[in-house]
Amino acid sequence: MAKKQPTILVVNDDGITAPGIKVLIEEMQKIGEVTVVAPEGPQSGTGHAITIGKPLRIDRIYIYPDVEMYKCSGTPVDCVKLAVNKVFKGRKPDICVSGINHGLNNSINVLYSGTMSAAVEGAIEEIPSIGFSYDDLEYDADFSKCRPYIRSITQQVLANGLAKGTLLNVNFPKVDEIKGIKICRQADAKWAEEFDERTDPSNRSYYWLTGVFQLRDRGEDTDVWALQNGYTSIVPVQFDMTAHHAIPELNSWNFNAE
Amino acid sequence: MAKKQPTILVVNDDGITAPGIKVLIEEMQKIGEVTVVAPEGPQSGTGHAITIGKPLRIDRIYIYPDVEMYKCSGTPVDCVKLAVNKVFKGRKPDICVSGINHGLNNSINVLYSGTMSAAVEGAIEEIPSIGFSYDDLEYDADFSKCRPYIRSITQQVLANGLAKGTLLNVNFPKVDEIKGIKICRQADAKWAEEFDERTDPSNRSYYWLTGVFQLRDRGEDTDVWALQNGYTSIVPVQFDMTAHHAIPELNSWNFNAE
Repeated sequence: MAKKQPTILVVNDDGITAPGIKVLIEEMQKIGEVTVVAPEGPQSGTGHAITIGKPLRIDRIYIYPDVEMYKCSGTPVDCVKLAVNKVFKGRKPDICVSGINHGLNNSINVLYSGTMSAAVEGAIEEIPSIGFSYDDLEYDADFSKCRPYIRSITQQVLANGLAKGTLLNVNFPKVDEIKGIKICRQADAKWAEEFDERTDPSNRSYYWLTGVFQLRDRGEDTDVWALQNGYTSIVPVQFDMTAHHAIPELNSWNFNAE
Repeated sequence: MAKKQPTILVVNDDGITAPGIKVLIEEMQKIGEVTVVAPEGPQSGTGHAITIGKPLRIDRIYIYPDVEMYKCSGTPVDCVKLAVNKVFKGRKPDICVSGINHGLNNSINVLYSGTMSAAVEGAIEEIPSIGFSYDDLEYDADFSKCRPYIRSITQQVLANGLAKGTLLNVNFPKVDEIKGIKICRQADAKWAEEFDERTDPSNRSYYWLTGVFQLRDRGEDTDVWALQNGYTSIVPVQFDMTAHHAIPELNSWNFNAE
């Protein structure tokens, strides 16, 4: 008797025509029944944005054979919401995978990343969810070394499930040979911004946001360390942002003092 | 000898002309030296989005007397980045306050909220940061009951500091009399989306995102409980999203199995 195939929602933030999502679709077709709902254009850096002030479009498109695909005018998080409500219509996919992002989403980038925010939204919807990112920003990035890891990690999540309120943030290093997998914590880092100032033809200033990644963390249990040392990093992520350890201190404050 | 006044960065996501930010500016002027960098228009629901694919504008404007104010074309997070780099020029304000948001940012809304994401960005920059939100979406909301709490909470943060990597999410209930302050954890909840489908003049479908807040948490130590019972809720928030408790389980998985 044929085992029922898992249903898989694929999403990303680089847009539905990005090479990274094509690789992810191909790997997921080896595992289950794939449905794609992805932004019609690039949505990098949109974080957990949703579309409130304007309407959303979602349209069936036909790019890759045997895959049900929809492009969406909104953000990656909008894509997950529309997938759950309008495509799966309340049924839930067995898993939600996001990516493969062109560029790392390690450390603090989990907050800025549309790829990761889509996976976070999947987890909020109680769908086991994984975000995949690769350390190569180029359009013609070679994702071949990521492929077996993507299958293996996805199958482990399908077999074992994920703890309530958690998802996985998977990043791949750009190396000749990946050494293996490290389960990590998010490194403490920030972007030191450098705004590139220019002048437009009307003589008004404008700025391009650029930045340098500043690591503030020397731990060897972080995603940054794992990637720098040739490992695939997996960080379990939670969407409860409460700093539980800070509650006792706040309870000792005197808010009546002015 | 006059004590040096604290420097205060004010930001929001409803835009620089919103009534909520005016109230926050007025309260902050009683405490220190205020600089405002806020979006030129509404940016609700933009989460931790940053502007990558297009340039940013920041312009000095003159709305309220004796306040240094700048409007920015980008997101709330862009505003904080530009404030730190272009307005404060590397000096850091003593505190960053965001809001007052028109509408609650309790529970899971910390992820979607531009107000809270601006405060998160302040915390990443190692500036003590607070987001303020009030349970009234109306333009002519009466923020008067929030005012003494805003002063008191801000002064406590200036006096005590905040634990590394944390910030505060403050929400005010809409009640005749606020009962006091509760230090809380973020309630477990989600938005159950209902996409309002319409047809445009070209006969194509489009959707408006709407939703119903679904509480999945019966705890009495949550922000939702506090607000429902007439208290101001304060949740300490952290930007490390690692689910540390999930690491041992993941270390037991066999990623070589396919």
